Amino acid sequence: MNFEQALQQKIDLKTKPLKALGKLETIAYQIAKIQQSLTPELSMPHLLVYAADHGLAKEGVSAYPQEVTPQMVYNFLNGGAAINVFCNQNHINLQIIDAGVNADFPPHPALISSKTAYGTANMLKEKAMSKEQLDYCFREAENHILAIAEAGCTIIGFGEMGIGNTSAASLLMSSLLDLPIADCTGRGTGVDDAQYKRKQAILQQVLDTHNELNSPLDKLQAMGGFEIAQICAAMLTAYKHNMIILVDGFICSSAFLVAYHLNPAIVDNAIFCHQSDELGHRTLLDKLGVSPILNLQLRLGEGTGCALAYPIIQSAVNFLNEMASFESANVSNK
Amino acid sequence: MNFEQALQQKIDLKTKPLKALGKLETIAYQIAKIQQSLTPELSMPHLLVYAADHGLAKEGVSAYPQEVTPQMVYNFLNGGAAINVFCNQNHINLQIIDAGVNADFPPHPALISSKTAYGTANMLKEKAMSKEQLDYCFREAENHILAIAEAGCTIIGFGEMGIGNTSAASLLMSSLLDLPIADCTGRGTGVDDAQYKRKQAILQQVLDTHNELNSPLDKLQAMGGFEIAQICAAMLTAYKHNMIILVDGFICSSAFLVAYHLNPAIVDNAIFCHQSDELGHRTLLDKLGVSPILNLQLRLGEGTGCALAYPIIQSAVNFLNEMASFESANVSNK
Repeated sequence: MNFEQALQQKIDLKTKPLKALGKLETIAYQIAKIQQSLTPELSMPHLLVYAADHGLAKEGVSAYPQEVTPQMVYNFLNGGAAINVFCNQNHINLQIIDAGVNADFPPHPALISSKTAYGTANMLKEKAMSKEQLDYCFREAENHILAIAEAGCTIIGFGEMGIGNTSAASLLMSSLLDLPIADCTGRGTGVDDAQYKRKQAILQQVLDTHNELNSPLDKLQAMGGFEIAQICAAMLTAYKHNMIILVDGFICSSAFLVAYHLNPAIVDNAIFCHQSDELGHRTLLDKLGVSPILNLQLRLGEGTGCALAYPIIQSAVNFLNEMASFESANVSNK
Repeated sequence: MNFEQALQQKIDLKTKPLKALGKLETIAYQIAKIQQSLTPELSMPHLLVYAADHGLAKEGVSAYPQEVTPQMVYNFLNGGAAINVFCNQNHINLQIIDAGVNADFPPHPALISSKTAYGTANMLKEKAMSKEQLDYCFREAENHILAIAEAGCTIIGFGEMGIGNTSAASLLMSSLLDLPIADCTGRGTGVDDAQYKRKQAILQQVLDTHNELNSPLDKLQAMGGFEIAQICAAMLTAYKHNMIILVDGFICSSAFLVAYHLNPAIVDNAIFCHQSDELGHRTLLDKLGVSPILNLQLRLGEGTGCALAYPIIQSAVNFLNEMASFESANVSNK
């Protein structure tokens, strides 16, 4: 009996009807396989929120002004955002990364500076970032994740904050999956009908501007954001260190999509935490052939879907480790 | 500004786009309204698993032998079942109630005896229980819930164990909602195709036998189970004491359906925790006009859906109590 068979048998002999724990069984199986252990463990869970600004925000693609990005970073540091509340509740280590916010912050124990620049360039007119900036994003994220892995973390989730970043996510999705921009563009934090039409028109212009690009990294450079680039690199590094990767909503999924195009095997270590209410996210998940844990009509980002799904993932590991088997409990099997 | 307006304003002024926390906002609103407080609290969460046997099990409607009911009670008492694992993880007080199992148990601190009889009668031939037995179920459950409410519990979930009880649930659903039995009958713990056909035929016979009954209580007496009757009474009592009622899967929802027919207002205090994979459950939830928190393809019962959804419910309360407002965090609103 090989490892996979032993694992499936362990799940099937728990005191429950066959497959009665549904998706929890899938998650337990996946995590045990990642760790090659019949008694897997979730150690030192981390949630990293990457924040950055976007040059494209000047074109009015978001419902909120760009100032909200640094304001929300202060909110994270002061413990007042949704992601703070959910990480506190579920004992998840929360770190905020300044990947390129258009403001300076005083030092803070929960803030890591990986500032690439004060926001990306306006991708309607030029590439969002230079090759050097993209390289910086990858180097910073790799070093950071390496340190977290070496400290003993085995499960890591990612979140983001950046006014304008649903636009970057829509562009990457449209370009990488070769889908019409309309199928990939939602209302973000809540633009109205007129703004929504305008947002689609602008994004189509951006696509036209950069339509000669072919490689995932070139597309990321031209149409990504500093937070998306760093999350992409962080996911790839987390995979390299065999961590469980928690994927949040639309923007983090677009970062995952780039990572997936660079290394498709990463999907083996990824748990998709929730189905966002942002248009395009369901399509993106369908294209990856994955189904998320939660569908709570969230459209907040920040990694909130990861933090909310974490107790369910813990339950999957716990049933595998703690439930009795038919034999040990003297319960008759079918 | 009345209470509902103040509550909605408090939710809307949290540092997040409007409605961005989706279903969590609905849950927070509901709980705050139940407690008539802008700072609601979940106190002393309880999960009560009611176990009982069914005379109809003799007809071969289940994939498992009737002996599994007492065996699983021992498994609950020894901490080896799924519901033990999830309640431990989420700090939920777990109690097991012997509502009418066909076996005797030695005393145990987590076991409460409300034994009505050693299983119901075979409802293919007579009513499942006598009027006296139904009254006993209601009296026992009322006293038990009263004690828990007086101890300070504000949120209570229910689970069940009883070989054959999906049959009773299907019958109650079909009869109360006037739906064909085929639309209400699933495979329970996993009968095969031949057994499934047979199960449907037997349930149709039971319906024909008791087709003269009109009141929900008469139907409960004729086609229910001791665990279903006690859960129904427990839910009604929990509502009377203004507790939040967590509804699990198909069988607990059938108990809720009876309670709802006796007092429709109970729906205001009910949180539907998950969409079971058992056929009929989605229809039942649709008829009630409710949407559950989780859809994890569970079909285990025991209250596992309640225990798994509990952290999400806690998150809803926590965001309402702990998140900063735009004003307190100095974040620009739209």
